[in-house]
Amino acid sequence: MTDRQLSINLATTRGAWGFAEAVDGCLRHDITAISPWRDQIAAIGLDEAARIVKANGLRLTGLCRGGMFPADTAEGRQKNINDNRRAIDEAAALGADCLVLVVGGLPGSSKDIAGVRGMVADGIAATLPHARDSGVSLAIEPLHPMYAADRACVNTLDQALDLCEQLGEGVGVAIDVYHVWWDPNLQAAIARAGRMNRILAHHICDWLVPTTDLLLDRGMMGDGVIDLKGIRASIEAAGYRGPQEVEIFSRDNWWKRPGDEVLATCVERFNTVC
Amino acid sequence: MTDRQLSINLATTRGAWGFAEAVDGCLRHDITAISPWRDQIAAIGLDEAARIVKANGLRLTGLCRGGMFPADTAEGRQKNINDNRRAIDEAAALGADCLVLVVGGLPGSSKDIAGVRGMVADGIAATLPHARDSGVSLAIEPLHPMYAADRACVNTLDQALDLCEQLGEGVGVAIDVYHVWWDPNLQAAIARAGRMNRILAHHICDWLVPTTDLLLDRGMMGDGVIDLKGIRASIEAAGYRGPQEVEIFSRDNWWKRPGDEVLATCVERFNTVC
Repeated sequence: MTDRQLSINLATTRGAWGFAEAVDGCLRHDITAISPWRDQIAAIGLDEAARIVKANGLRLTGLCRGGMFPADTAEGRQKNINDNRRAIDEAAALGADCLVLVVGGLPGSSKDIAGVRGMVADGIAATLPHARDSGVSLAIEPLHPMYAADRACVNTLDQALDLCEQLGEGVGVAIDVYHVWWDPNLQAAIARAGRMNRILAHHICDWLVPTTDLLLDRGMMGDGVIDLKGIRASIEAAGYRGPQEVEIFSRDNWWKRPGDEVLATCVERFNTVC
Repeated sequence: MTDRQLSINLATTRGAWGFAEAVDGCLRHDITAISPWRDQIAAIGLDEAARIVKANGLRLTGLCRGGMFPADTAEGRQKNINDNRRAIDEAAALGADCLVLVVGGLPGSSKDIAGVRGMVADGIAATLPHARDSGVSLAIEPLHPMYAADRACVNTLDQALDLCEQLGEGVGVAIDVYHVWWDPNLQAAIARAGRMNRILAHHICDWLVPTTDLLLDRGMMGDGVIDLKGIRASIEAAGYRGPQEVEIFSRDNWWKRPGDEVLATCVERFNTVC
């Protein structure tokens, strides 16, 4: 693979930089693919962000994030759908490859995870026509089962692919190694995603041992136990040829370091252990 | 269900009591089924523990725990098998319903989870003849995927059942709601376990939102998001009629409370929300 490309999810440098500084930092390290978050775009303004993207010829491997569909009431669910439509507009304005969907967990005091999964399917279905009209692909990101209650009740790649089959064209999957590395069925699911031509993004980081926080203790590639090269080989064998996007939430380590140190480490690890 | 029975895994009262105090406490609350840990048995001595069990007519719904099969070297794996044989002897001496297996995670610097899963299958296979000879059932407990790296690389009920099919008679599953509640395939997997007649134990507690520690922040039944009655209905429909065993690791809450308060709460919640 001489054409491998690194993308930086701007959560990775969130501790050091906002959007404009992160773009400058990435360019210093010859990184021309990024994935920003909506709050980072809002802070600088959508028009200015789009100008920066265009002026620098950046590829956006995704916009983070849509989703969070479930709510206790029909009004709440409609409000969430409306927010996803705005996110689609932003992704279109930025020319992002996809809008990443973190679909949402159990609302309020619900214990009905099957019912909430139905809310997610309904929410994506209600959002999808606007996504298709806007030329924005929706990337369902299955999240690790430890987030089933509060972040995303889509927890395996197969479950996300079942949703894709149900929903039709315009929706695919974002495969983040952090969320799926443990799955005994991972290789078969990646092959299935390839046959369905639904792989929209490939996120990388690492699983640390021990992991000290459920959300904010992701590791730099190579510092944990994930077989990054093995999973990449499966994803490439399934036909995906897009960038690998580094997404690291690390409150007590990488978010405390200078952005240039974080990016230099990402580049070095990308070239050696990914 | 008029014949529902509560069992207390003695991890639940670990903060307050050793084995003998925990037995006395359970008897005060009319609880006659328990599941102790090997360190608790060792602290009082196996013979004395067995005497207490017999003298009080206690049912042991399991002995915690065997497992931890993977190791970097063949010698290490043999040492682990030998330890499991000793655990089987202890389970036999105590008359436990089963020896619970927490199978182990990635040893050393391994990133080969598929290979390590093979070590687990080999380890159980090497242990199983002694278990059969001793009349002790081995209960594979699939653990939540967040423990895949460091505690157990068997992470779904279906994966555990695949192992059971591979290994033959004498091995079944312990279904702990904490580990499996998120699984989109849970209902089908429970039904499959019933058809295979492999359900050896049913553990309960709850998943808290937020969860502040990966290991030691389990919730009391009713304080979290797990549909305990729904999962029980599936397990009963699959033919299981044994006790429900409360197993709560709670360093900062229940382990700090008096044992009698913990047990009284277990009884009340068992009668209302389980």
